[in-house]
Amino acid sequence: MRLFGTQQNINGELHIGGMSVSQLKQQFGTPLYVYDFAYMKERAAMIRSAFTHPKISTGVMYASKAFLTLAMAQWIRDEKMLIEVVSDGELYTVAKANMPMERVFFHGNAKTFNDIQLAYQLRVGTIILDNEVEFKSFQQYHPGGFRQRVMLRLNPLVDSITHEYIQTTKNDSKFGVAPYSKETLELVSSIQEDDRFEFVGIHSHVGSQIVDPKTFYAQVDSMLQIVKAWSQKGIATKELNLGGGFGVAYTEQDAEIDLTIVLPQMLQQIELFCQSEGLTLPKVYIEPARSLIANAGLTLYTVHSTKRTDSGKEFCFVDGSMADHIRTVLYQATYDAVIATKMNLPEKQTYTVSGRACESGDILVRDVKLATPEPLDLLAVSTTGAYHYSMASNYNRFTKPAVVFVEQGKAKVVVQRETLDDVIRNDVPLYE
Amino acid sequence: MRLFGTQQNINGELHIGGMSVSQLKQQFGTPLYVYDFAYMKERAAMIRSAFTHPKISTGVMYASKAFLTLAMAQWIRDEKMLIEVVSDGELYTVAKANMPMERVFFHGNAKTFNDIQLAYQLRVGTIILDNEVEFKSFQQYHPGGFRQRVMLRLNPLVDSITHEYIQTTKNDSKFGVAPYSKETLELVSSIQEDDRFEFVGIHSHVGSQIVDPKTFYAQVDSMLQIVKAWSQKGIATKELNLGGGFGVAYTEQDAEIDLTIVLPQMLQQIELFCQSEGLTLPKVYIEPARSLIANAGLTLYTVHSTKRTDSGKEFCFVDGSMADHIRTVLYQATYDAVIATKMNLPEKQTYTVSGRACESGDILVRDVKLATPEPLDLLAVSTTGAYHYSMASNYNRFTKPAVVFVEQGKAKVVVQRETLDDVIRNDVPLYE
Repeated sequence: MRLFGTQQNINGELHIGGMSVSQLKQQFGTPLYVYDFAYMKERAAMIRSAFTHPKISTGVMYASKAFLTLAMAQWIRDEKMLIEVVSDGELYTVAKANMPMERVFFHGNAKTFNDIQLAYQLRVGTIILDNEVEFKSFQQYHPGGFRQRVMLRLNPLVDSITHEYIQTTKNDSKFGVAPYSKETLELVSSIQEDDRFEFVGIHSHVGSQIVDPKTFYAQVDSMLQIVKAWSQKGIATKELNLGGGFGVAYTEQDAEIDLTIVLPQMLQQIELFCQSEGLTLPKVYIEPARSLIANAGLTLYTVHSTKRTDSGKEFCFVDGSMADHIRTVLYQATYDAVIATKMNLPEKQTYTVSGRACESGDILVRDVKLATPEPLDLLAVSTTGAYHYSMASNYNRFTKPAVVFVEQGKAKVVVQRETLDDVIRNDVPLYE
Repeated sequence: MRLFGTQQNINGELHIGGMSVSQLKQQFGTPLYVYDFAYMKERAAMIRSAFTHPKISTGVMYASKAFLTLAMAQWIRDEKMLIEVVSDGELYTVAKANMPMERVFFHGNAKTFNDIQLAYQLRVGTIILDNEVEFKSFQQYHPGGFRQRVMLRLNPLVDSITHEYIQTTKNDSKFGVAPYSKETLELVSSIQEDDRFEFVGIHSHVGSQIVDPKTFYAQVDSMLQIVKAWSQKGIATKELNLGGGFGVAYTEQDAEIDLTIVLPQMLQQIELFCQSEGLTLPKVYIEPARSLIANAGLTLYTVHSTKRTDSGKEFCFVDGSMADHIRTVLYQATYDAVIATKMNLPEKQTYTVSGRACESGDILVRDVKLATPEPLDLLAVSTTGAYHYSMASNYNRFTKPAVVFVEQGKAKVVVQRETLDDVIRNDVPLYE
């Protein structure tokens, strides 16, 4: 298993942030989501630094859906980053973390009345409109007395080679509006004509977990062509939001995007284009999430047992399940794992890591070579920092694991482990 | 859309349990999981009645994982059914519902220390052991003073034609032990030799959502052959648990299992075999879940908007998402839906029903003909009674919907809708 950040093999045991996995288990139990806090800071600094340009104003906007808690929102605030939310629940969380509202961007393709109401109540900095129905709702409920900044989500035609479920710019995507259609230009006009709104620019997102840099350059080009065409119609794009989708390595075989190369290249491409076309340079945003946080997280499990089936398949059972790790079965995603208490022992055999859910599909890692697992060994699945805690369910009435940030030998609980009483908290009996 | 139970089209509006969908929305909001309580009772009565035999003692055991809340557990108790749990969370729930513990069967392939501890503390009636490691744990922690009833889960080779993720008796399934292996017979001997345990019989589960009756007859035959072979080795099978997997119709095109035919047939098969082989008739159990509850449930959504993409794809957006409906993307499951407030209008066009999650894979119903949906219309997705609330997540920090049981014009909330404060309830700030 590839080690990220402060992850170290010390005397055959995996350490993160200066703590051994045994210490982590002893203090917090398993399953446990563990984040390498120093590595999160390192990644944030790297992304911010790579996404700068002498002539272009830039903004790095964290996409909350990958992983959001009060602590995470506080950290994003402290890192002086922007943040993107997609629901009233995410917005409520960042508000509770005292995120300045001018740094919040509200995404989503079908914002509800509750979403809109909370956005206005908190005075969210920028709304990213998906379509004209949304704009009408925002018009209808605008409380007056201020100008609401809005961007418009576009759906340019950029192909990306990635999993079907996480593509977003095929032309049958649910997101955004067609950049060159009459309806879209009419929508921009209506926004510009309503004094209560300030149209600041456009957004697109090319897809998720993309590892070919050319996809991003194609997207930038596609967006710049729109900026140019719209400029000729008198529509100024003051701000350009390029979304995220920067792929990370889940296993040692995976390619990943080198942001220190790709981000400066994207900015340079924008500068050259605008220069040659005589366009004012827009402020440019990106929306990293997975690329910021995925490799910084791992999930720690206790090995329960192993089982060899009649057909010769070797299972390693752990105390988690698809309820805390859904991506393997949902997206056929691949992961790497290690017996974190036996890092120096040879990886002799290939195992399927499965959990305790009452379901055959309960697979965490499909095929991984492991040192011989024994009961009470600890098993770590790497690169679970994005879309793991955030997608966790209570399937089988399992309690959701705790989440800790670890740094310099200290662990800070940022989400408490659910208790059995949490499981029935909202249940109402038929009768007392 | 096929109407189940008390579902009715009254003046173009869907009614369930004597309540219109508009009333339900007005009282409880959307998304809303709605259960037809009368139909649940009807299904339970039908299953109990079909699974009886003049000479065979039978037990119908509800498999909690499909849908469990305090109210559900109380109802199962009142229906005098048995109940199957697979985790400490499910066990805790049924205990809080005052289910008599002799009616509880504890399943699972990797029971944790917490599971075992709670099982002993509450004196769960029957443990269904998956393997020898589990038995050793139960031996180790047995508090003494009583005999623990146990069954053993076997993995007979019965093929079932169903989705890969929900097959459980392929010989590379994670569940159970091989019936004819030396190790399994040794395990049975060790159980029988330990006075603190009472070995009562065997269990198998052929898979999920099976619509071909022959699969169940093959399973019964397979289990009876084991009973016979074990009997010749002096192992008496006093109880025979045949699991569940009885397929239901999700759409009008789907086949389903007719339990009034299949269940009596299974019992007759057992009688004839035991008679001809001179075997004592065992007590026989089945574990229905989906077949009891799936068609009794539907999910009610409010239509947000529609969108036609460049490629001509028609989306109908609702106020839910894959967070409350994961089976479409997880299992490529098919569903039926209807504009519940326009039941008399022609279904003119095919739509993809999608939600508000920030993800392209957020599909609830892939292709369904609908009457023209307009904002604030209500959309009902049918057959969501099993594996919907139980698999719901807080992805995108969405709040989980409420659940209501409806009967004779009255609705009873059995799970309260989550609030925004629920979303951050276990979050711990980095600092105050």
